[in-house]
Amino acid sequence: MIRAPKDIWLIGIGTGSLSHITLEGVAALRDAALILVPRKGAGKDDLAEVRHQIIAASETRAKVVHFDYPERDPALPYQERVALWHDEIANRWAAALDTAQVEGPVALLVWGDPSLYDSTLRIAARLTPEPNVRVIPGITAIQALTAAHAIPLNTVNGAVHVTTGRRLRTHGLPQGDTTVVMLDGECTFKDLPPDGLHIWWGAYLGTRNQILIHGLLDEVCDEIIQTRSDARAQYGWIMDSYLLRRTSR
Amino acid sequence: MIRAPKDIWLIGIGTGSLSHITLEGVAALRDAALILVPRKGAGKDDLAEVRHQIIAASETRAKVVHFDYPERDPALPYQERVALWHDEIANRWAAALDTAQVEGPVALLVWGDPSLYDSTLRIAARLTPEPNVRVIPGITAIQALTAAHAIPLNTVNGAVHVTTGRRLRTHGLPQGDTTVVMLDGECTFKDLPPDGLHIWWGAYLGTRNQILIHGLLDEVCDEIIQTRSDARAQYGWIMDSYLLRRTSR
Repeated sequence: MIRAPKDIWLIGIGTGSLSHITLEGVAALRDAALILVPRKGAGKDDLAEVRHQIIAASETRAKVVHFDYPERDPALPYQERVALWHDEIANRWAAALDTAQVEGPVALLVWGDPSLYDSTLRIAARLTPEPNVRVIPGITAIQALTAAHAIPLNTVNGAVHVTTGRRLRTHGLPQGDTTVVMLDGECTFKDLPPDGLHIWWGAYLGTRNQILIHGLLDEVCDEIIQTRSDARAQYGWIMDSYLLRRTSR
Repeated sequence: MIRAPKDIWLIGIGTGSLSHITLEGVAALRDAALILVPRKGAGKDDLAEVRHQIIAASETRAKVVHFDYPERDPALPYQERVALWHDEIANRWAAALDTAQVEGPVALLVWGDPSLYDSTLRIAARLTPEPNVRVIPGITAIQALTAAHAIPLNTVNGAVHVTTGRRLRTHGLPQGDTTVVMLDGECTFKDLPPDGLHIWWGAYLGTRNQILIHGLLDEVCDEIIQTRSDARAQYGWIMDSYLLRRTSR
């Protein structure tokens, strides 16, 4: 049995801008004894590069230890596939930490914020004994998107629904005036009844490659699909999200 | 006619911790020519103090200019009252800027993030001619809440509904597994059917006075109401929010 570290710090680093990190995040990187970083996979060089730039800029003296992400088994049903994948990542963390033999707080840099469509909290909870988890909040893709477009997330006293592409396909467009869609690799917006819907779309938010498109869904739908496809081919990866609303502001 | 500044920067400063601000936020404060700050009102001394500490820590040389918030007219219907209040704040910004006579970017420090249940974007849009608005994202109360409790915002592939106390009273608990409620001065959770609902509640998130309570709604409901009432009496103000979910994680 590999013993888990006593303290794990999950540091939200925002969506790709080096300056999205908070002062609390910088201080945590500096105070950590060890920083656990996923090795870059195919097409993820840019993301690995941002992580290393943030670590370097923090001037931490923590030991940086790498681990490899396992593959997900596409044959399994979605929830089971995700659960097994989390188990396997927890094992790899434990093995990497065991090899490193460093005492003190272990930090992980989490894209966006550790609370939002991220597995790191669930993986940390699989370690035995369960460590003390400290979460340092970060800028989510939702805020990076609304900031880049300079729009409010909610209408006055309005509700906001945050969902995934997968869920949008199975559940349709939710009730309410504002919907934010994340993790949508299939441009599900193209299958929605466009009547009066405005879309604010953004990719590579916060980075120098940031792309923004907004307008009436039926007028910009094709442009977004084409732009997304071209950008993905050019950079080898894409992260994007979008906001849908029936009003233009 | 008072001329509006060419550039307005809205800087999200998080929920009360001095270290919630991002590196981008600190740089923007430093680069601003003028910082527009609301004068502290009754019971808001703590909030004004945090703003001034953040400005001081940034070591900016910008001129700090104050304005007073107008009163809202309680006799008007909600949407109209809010719209008129925004008009009046825009006038006060313009008057304060006109008196100050400083050229260059004008910065405002916005509690949380400028996109979420905040009026600053709507007020800036009322200036004539409409300025270039740059939004610097900040940590919202939602992320401060989930970070403090070290919980995910969403369940795996789950949707999240963000709403207000006012809306929860008129529309009831939304469909879906996770609901975040903000701006609820009336503890509306006490009127929900508690069957199986868990609540994660937090006040003064990120500050040294942070209070957290979580548990089954029917078991901690009274404790939250009492704690909230006591804290509000002690500090003269309160900002709180909460997350509701049918599962315990």
